[in-house]
Amino acid sequence: MRTGVCYYPEHWPEERWATDAAHMRRLGLSVVRIGEFAWSRLEERDGSLSLDWLERAMNILHDAGLSIVLGTPTATPPRWMLDKYPDMLAVDAQGRRRDFGSRRHYCFSHEPYIDECRRIVSILAERFGEHPGLIAWQTDNEYGCHSTSISYSAQALAAFRGWCADRYTDIRQLNLAWGNVFWSMEYDSFEQIGLPVGTVTESNPSHQLAYWRFSSAQIRRFNRAQVEILRKLSPGRDILHNYMGNFVEFDHHELSRDLDIATWDNYPLGFLTRDSDDAEDQKLFLRTGHPDSSAFHHDLYRGCCNGRWWVMEQQPGPVNWAPYNPSPASGMVRLWGWEAFAHGAEVMSYFRWRQAPFGQEQTHTGVLLPNGDDDVAAAEIAVLNRELDELASLPANALTGNTVHPDDRIGGHASTVQSSVAIVFSYAGIAMQDIQPPGGSGYSSLDFCQRLYGACRQWGVNVDIVSPQAALDHYRLILVCTSTEDDAPLVEKLEAVRREQQPIIALFPGTGSRSSEYRIPDELPPGQFARLIPVRIVRSESLPLRTVLTASDATGRYLNCARWREHVNSPIEPRMRFSDGWGFHYEQERIHYINAIPDDPALRSLAGEWLQQAGLPCRDIGPLVRTQRIGPYRLAFNFGTQRVDLDKHLGPRLDFHHDTQVLIGSRTLDHAQVAVWVVR
Amino acid sequence: MRTGVCYYPEHWPEERWATDAAHMRRLGLSVVRIGEFAWSRLEERDGSLSLDWLERAMNILHDAGLSIVLGTPTATPPRWMLDKYPDMLAVDAQGRRRDFGSRRHYCFSHEPYIDECRRIVSILAERFGEHPGLIAWQTDNEYGCHSTSISYSAQALAAFRGWCADRYTDIRQLNLAWGNVFWSMEYDSFEQIGLPVGTVTESNPSHQLAYWRFSSAQIRRFNRAQVEILRKLSPGRDILHNYMGNFVEFDHHELSRDLDIATWDNYPLGFLTRDSDDAEDQKLFLRTGHPDSSAFHHDLYRGCCNGRWWVMEQQPGPVNWAPYNPSPASGMVRLWGWEAFAHGAEVMSYFRWRQAPFGQEQTHTGVLLPNGDDDVAAAEIAVLNRELDELASLPANALTGNTVHPDDRIGGHASTVQSSVAIVFSYAGIAMQDIQPPGGSGYSSLDFCQRLYGACRQWGVNVDIVSPQAALDHYRLILVCTSTEDDAPLVEKLEAVRREQQPIIALFPGTGSRSSEYRIPDELPPGQFARLIPVRIVRSESLPLRTVLTASDATGRYLNCARWREHVNSPIEPRMRFSDGWGFHYEQERIHYINAIPDDPALRSLAGEWLQQAGLPCRDIGPLVRTQRIGPYRLAFNFGTQRVDLDKHLGPRLDFHHDTQVLIGSRTLDHAQVAVWVVR
Amino acid sequence: MRTGVCYYPEHWPEERWATDAAHMRRLGLSVVRIGEFAWSRLEERDGSLSLDWLERAMNILHDAGLSIVLGTPTATPPRWMLDKYPDMLAVDAQGRRRDFGSRRHYCFSHEPYIDECRRIVSILAERFGEHPGLIAWQTDNEYGCHSTSISYSAQALAAFRGWCADRYTDIRQLNLAWGNVFWSMEYDSFEQIGLPVGTVTESNPSHQLAYWRFSSAQIRRFNRAQVEILRKLSPGRDILHNYMGNFVEFDHHELSRDLDIATWDNYPLGFLTRDSDDAEDQKLFLRTGHPDSSAFHHDLYRGCCNGRWWVMEQQPGPVNWAPYNPSPASGMVRLWGWEAFAHGAEVMSYFRWRQAPFGQEQTHTGVLLPNGDDDVAAAEIAVLNRELDELASLPANALTGNTVHPDDRIGGHASTVQSSVAIVFSYAGIAMQDIQPPGGSGYSSLDFCQRLYGACRQWGVNVDIVSPQAALDHYRLILVCTSTEDDAPLVEKLEAVRREQQPIIALFPGTGSRSSEYRIPDELPPGQFARLIPVRIVRSESLPLRTVLTASDATGRYLNCARWREHVNSPIEPRMRFSDGWGFHYEQERIHYINAIPDDPALRSLAGEWLQQAGLPCRDIGPLVRTQRIGPYRLAFNFGTQRVDLDKHLGPRLDFHHDTQVLIGSRTLDHAQVAVWVVR
Repeated sequence: MRTGVCYYPEHWPEERWATDAAHMRRLGLSVVRIGEFAWSRLEERDGSLSLDWLERAMNILHDAGLSIVLGTPTATPPRWMLDKYPDMLAVDAQGRRRDFGSRRHYCFSHEPYIDECRRIVSILAERFGEHPGLIAWQTDNEYGCHSTSISYSAQALAAFRGWCADRYTDIRQLNLAWGNVFWSMEYDSFEQIGLPVGTVTESNPSHQLAYWRFSSAQIRRFNRAQVEILRKLSPGRDILHNYMGNFVEFDHHELSRDLDIATWDNYPLGFLTRDSDDAEDQKLFLRTGHPDSSAFHHDLYRGCCNGRWWVMEQQPGPVNWAPYNPSPASGMVRLWGWEAFAHGAEVMSYFRWRQAPFGQEQTHTGVLLPNGDDDVAAAEIAVLNRELDELASLPANALTGNTVHPDDRIGGHASTVQSSVAIVFSYAGIAMQDIQPPGGSGYSSLDFCQRLYGACRQWGVNVDIVSPQAALDHYRLILVCTSTEDDAPLVEKLEAVRREQQPIIALFPGTGSRSSEYRIPDELPPGQFARLIPVRIVRSESLPLRTVLTASDATGRYLNCARWREHVNSPIEPRMRFSDGWGFHYEQERIHYINAIPDDPALRSLAGEWLQQAGLPCRDIGPLVRTQRIGPYRLAFNFGTQRVDLDKHLGPRLDFHHDTQVLIGSRTLDHAQVAVWVVR
Repeated sequence: MRTGVCYYPEHWPEERWATDAAHMRRLGLSVVRIGEFAWSRLEERDGSLSLDWLERAMNILHDAGLSIVLGTPTATPPRWMLDKYPDMLAVDAQGRRRDFGSRRHYCFSHEPYIDECRRIVSILAERFGEHPGLIAWQTDNEYGCHSTSISYSAQALAAFRGWCADRYTDIRQLNLAWGNVFWSMEYDSFEQIGLPVGTVTESNPSHQLAYWRFSSAQIRRFNRAQVEILRKLSPGRDILHNYMGNFVEFDHHELSRDLDIATWDNYPLGFLTRDSDDAEDQKLFLRTGHPDSSAFHHDLYRGCCNGRWWVMEQQPGPVNWAPYNPSPASGMVRLWGWEAFAHGAEVMSYFRWRQAPFGQEQTHTGVLLPNGDDDVAAAEIAVLNRELDELASLPANALTGNTVHPDDRIGGHASTVQSSVAIVFSYAGIAMQDIQPPGGSGYSSLDFCQRLYGACRQWGVNVDIVSPQAALDHYRLILVCTSTEDDAPLVEKLEAVRREQQPIIALFPGTGSRSSEYRIPDELPPGQFARLIPVRIVRSESLPLRTVLTASDATGRYLNCARWREHVNSPIEPRMRFSDGWGFHYEQERIHYINAIPDDPALRSLAGEWLQQAGLPCRDIGPLVRTQRIGPYRLAFNFGTQRVDLDKHLGPRLDFHHDTQVLIGSRTLDHAQVAVWVVR
Repeated sequence: MRTGVCYYPEHWPEERWATDAAHMRRLGLSVVRIGEFAWSRLEERDGSLSLDWLERAMNILHDAGLSIVLGTPTATPPRWMLDKYPDMLAVDAQGRRRDFGSRRHYCFSHEPYIDECRRIVSILAERFGEHPGLIAWQTDNEYGCHSTSISYSAQALAAFRGWCADRYTDIRQLNLAWGNVFWSMEYDSFEQIGLPVGTVTESNPSHQLAYWRFSSAQIRRFNRAQVEILRKLSPGRDILHNYMGNFVEFDHHELSRDLDIATWDNYPLGFLTRDSDDAEDQKLFLRTGHPDSSAFHHDLYRGCCNGRWWVMEQQPGPVNWAPYNPSPASGMVRLWGWEAFAHGAEVMSYFRWRQAPFGQEQTHTGVLLPNGDDDVAAAEIAVLNRELDELASLPANALTGNTVHPDDRIGGHASTVQSSVAIVFSYAGIAMQDIQPPGGSGYSSLDFCQRLYGACRQWGVNVDIVSPQAALDHYRLILVCTSTEDDAPLVEKLEAVRREQQPIIALFPGTGSRSSEYRIPDELPPGQFARLIPVRIVRSESLPLRTVLTASDATGRYLNCARWREHVNSPIEPRMRFSDGWGFHYEQERIHYINAIPDDPALRSLAGEWLQQAGLPCRDIGPLVRTQRIGPYRLAFNFGTQRVDLDKHLGPRLDFHHDTQVLIGSRTLDHAQVAVWVVR
């Protein structure tokens, strides 16, 4: 794994560039991302280009030995662009223009702006596409950030009507698909179709889903306009985009088809204070982030581009944008680096090199302080890089008999992360649940998926998070938890896998509960998934936050559920029953249907049972420690404040033996510490 | 009482209609409502009518023995209507059009749309007005749903100016009435009058009240346009509208003057999770609804059309629209049916026949599942109808000596529900309190009224809820709790009743505290109500939620109050005093003035005292059981989870004797169970 | 101190005026404010003046012996003004016009409206400027009330562009100052500058700060337009404006330069229930207001106009506008009067004379009830005035040997309130912190400043609150807690004071953390304040509400902090350390840097230490009692419910000796009671 940093030469005096580049190298950094917000300096007036400074900057960075990622600057069109296209701005759900003065001030459906993007990207690619220091292009920056995935502009509406005409051909077909007869909502022509917002009460969920699909497709289309140019003019360079965390507003699997590498921006403490509604987690993990937060996204984005992924922006200290911005615990910057390594990152890049003393993010820390001195992250990054070098140079064969990659620090190749557990992850499925939350007000299916991931991880196993289109034949445990859509190809694939490999397959509430047009399947949920296990959902209920439902069996074993429960008709006797007689947990021939939302202990119990049945080495390591295997190595991470003895805590089932020699770290892990050893 | 169901033939293949009709009959249903959202199928293009399918549907239903209620489809104008009248949409308080794409997308003040409604109603009435299966018309659907009572459109403003000119004649008169001198808000002409929203700080409460009265009158006017046509073209058929629960945004007493029957839509679990702010209630009654919720509205709407009322839509299972949508406890569908019977419903109709697999309400359950199989409500409805038949056929005379209606299942006739207790309920009075809540932020006078109702019901008595215009001469206890308006005719009526019958009369905080123009009465509150008891309110205070004020007397008896308290000047010595010396509870010659908001135990204590003084048979039956007398019967309902022994719990004071023979149910009531017996 | 009242002759029949005036005098009131909302009666149509009634009113009031404050009526332009200037309305952050129908419906940047204000003020000043009863003019009313300080109208934007052109001359200068390169936000011309709202994500904080400064300047400019006329046409009369509580939306120090007297509107109970987020305070002080609330503002506004200040509106009973409006405890109206006296008020004026039975504030109590009878405040005001008379007439010299002002009731002259403690208060500094709250979501630097004030006050000392421009040379303890701006003149002044007087100076988090253009200083925070003490802030973190950080020293002494913490680099050894090693509390040569937000006990501990080191007589009197010295007097106030023995509670350190003779009140203070005595 290489490390890198995000750098803004346009923010600093040119005489400082070489100093910065040399210092980056001293810290062990070898990748640098530049350019993604610099349009106003690349083209100060319409057509008036100033590319020389960028070339000088690239030369300096390259000369210092840094590999360059160049960002296309399309997330921040300059002010003069607005004079040309006053209607290029996105429009929010209340019909208000989302104005110039920050960033992402454009609508994905504005064709002239897309042409402007083609133009600037062509100019940059022609000039720099074969620069010797250039290794990759980043398209735009954080698509969808600040709720920009969806725009309700006139351009968007016109494009949506066209999208509908393409999809349904005949307006009567659309009326039928959406069930518009329901409240006399039938259209006479595509030109009458409106936006799914601003209606008297909620708009038709089919309409909402169509608009989500359309908006997601528009982003992919916008991105592809740049990719096509870059492929042509900058051969051999990777194309990537930087995705975000806890963000599912468009289909990342779809967009990733056009990229070489999926990268993402990882701010563990910001995500916790912004997104968690668990007060205990907020307290326990205030300075470490949630133990599953980084790993979940690492595994999710590893599933996007055939295993190639980076962290493009990594939190180095307090950020500026969360409700509360605490300082990371000492050691966490290093830990997060090793964690990315363990999940197979090619590159771990920090945001940002030097804290800007101006602008919106002036309280976002960097590797350097605003005055150019080292901030505390610098030292941890230097340590991380020394340790990575050390590991790469170890005579690992001698240690273990295993083949350790001799020429690489490991990482960045899907093949190096092996997992027997897959979570099937559907962006559209999550969107469908968000449109009409089946778990009631505030229920989040993304959060449930992360909790399920965490339940597996607390047994010490690697987990893949894969798209519904991914191959599933090498997994021993397959968890289907966001596949709201009644997805025939997925069902067929699961049936095939089941015939061949007999993995354990678990389906969770809501699976197959809607057609692709957002209708309840004719044969009731789980639709065609019932070919895997004969269950029919005849009722679904949502429950207030504090309502706990306990399911138990004759032996007295019990599990607690909450939020959402389905009533199942099935010839199968349920494994447990709730006190009112509703069944819970249907199983037949290694296929499980879980018809309620288990709480964390229940999820962990179920995960453990399945992992053991699947014959996977695992052990309950609790909520505070995490471990991951990559290539010949296993790593362990301690997010808790108590010291952990790896002998006792992991033991042989998780590759830690009394004579295991720890290469990085030690046999006991303190708070925020890491250990790395070679698997026997 | 008959039972019925809401049916949408346009949602299902025509070949299914007869099957459905036959199955309805099998379950004992005999009434069916259709048509209220079908405009886009009745008139696919402007003027292009398709009425034949509706006639075929009506014929099939009628042939199966079902009585038909036909809804006018005016709550869902088709999309082409918008092309004709782009300005027909309502406008919200932020000035945004409330757009097409769901329902109720029209402004009550749009004259051309009202003409379109006249046109379609005339067409339907001409074609179907004398159909032999037709027993009633429903106008539109749920007036005011989704906050549509009030529109801030240009049409509405113009109509409001006209309404003001009619009411005040001279703009100086309006300025004087509203006290516009207060902040130089005086108008020079009616054309200058604006909307009472969008102002820098709150607009004049007199202005707000006028706009509320105007908006309420516009709804009545809109409704009357249809009624006039239906009266003429469909003689002998009842005209009704379906009101809602916990909804007071227009004056239902006024609108009901034009109807034959008041019907309402009863979703007990939805109301609880959406409207209750009591965490304990949310837990206790999650699967039953609050014990007073249905009954309160039954009694409220029984007071609207001379005792004639229905439930038009009854919850059969989880709904889709509340924050949480739990499944009703087993037995509740039957219990709600008997409860409607006990309060005198003519018809109890379920919403909806078959769960729609498409559209906004696809997770709203029905009597049938989306696939056409029976959902669980079907069985409970069948039982209810068998028991109703059984009761109707009993030789009740032999049992009791009372005359039991021999030819009817009871219900639907005001005379059959006898009550000696009345709550005077003023829609305008509630609106006035909502404009400037005298109980502070979040205080709801509707909620207080329901708690007062519940306090009486916990003593086992029947309660009438009546309009301020209703006759009061047959009551022994009269509770005046929402009459904010200084209502001279009501005062005169109370004085007359007091002279003749000496009932106990209790006035609650805020009574007579504003003139009809929203001014404090010259002689201070309670205005002319002081003719009943010499009290003057010299101060009113609101208190934070958790502040409890305890009033006590010399004997140590105490009651707790909260939220709102008035300081009374009076020659009468108060019955109790608060610790700071303010008096509480003034009484003189059977007239009581309660000058603070008692908590539930205090309200129950006061209600019990008054009922006993009034000589009414009553007994404290606590918060979980309810009982109601109708005709010769008394019924009891158990909303709690503990079994209740009627001998001990009700006893002779509430008509249950050791030798009482229970006709339906048994002497002990389990959770969600009902008992019916004949009063000796 | 004189007492007064706000009166609206235009609300009452002319025949009542003399009665009211006589009754005012009977209660001891001698000042009356009139006219500030009467424009629609002074000029019913454009140009059609009706000033005679006002003259008659003034004559009646004057003849009764009342001194008159005349308000300019510009806060409530009449409705016809809108017909002339439909664009005169302010526009909110969502782009909506803030409409006619209440008050303050104008934009400070609308030139024609400013001309109209000049016109009406000229007319009034010409007619009444030398009326013998007139002692002062109030300009407009409560600038900024209802969030009107900032308008986003087209006029405001145009004026802002001009303001920017004046300030920065060259657009490149502005781009540089604001750091617009950050996200390609650079402008090509001043005409491209937009509003700092409606952007996709937050706008540039430099842009926000500039708009705040501009808006603040526009208010001063608006006010000055009136002041210039009044100075000319009404010689010898004071000019004042009535400010508000807990309100910092514009720079009051700046505007005050144009006034003679700062007055403010004091509603202690309303402020508590509206603004406090401390549940315990809300309970303890429900009926008294927070013990520091009035005093803090008295001291703040005493610092605005060279010590001349009034309370222009004082709460007499429940108000109408807070979330909850409780009744003040018996005695509080009198207590608040004495408190104003103690802090040096010239006038204490009640709002309002008689409760209006109409309009928006009809539930706002007055001195009289709506029917004209005395409300309870009347009696307390009469007592207060008798006691003030009594005190003024006492042969105080005989009692004490001190010189007691023989001809005045004391108050109204800065010299009479002596303080050795100063809090430097910066409006711009607070605005800067509110733009990007360094203490995280919901953190309020104004609230912290009030807590710091309270910590001092709990040691029994007088406190001055002064502008950054104020002279500081006579203070022994100087607290710098809102000086976010890196303020060179302030630093120089502090250095000078330090050289000469060696006061104790304490700097609090955020001091000097931003340049005047909202950038982090090049040398890091605290910028030039580091000349006072060598500290550099290298990191700042914000923390969730319930996170407590404990700092301790080797002796085991500890203090708790929360919300916000800075990491300090310094050659100085910190006095304490947090458990993670960060230092806390840096001190060198009587200069302290406090680098986290102490909780209340910690603040009290620090304040006590400093006061004692400064050699000031002080004693911890706890959170419920307050005391203040003025001239020869000391006063004590009991906000708690327990009786307080002044001998024990204050004792000699706070001027209470065993033989002290209490002039007003007694040696033991009950709830809401006051004591006044002469300092030995």
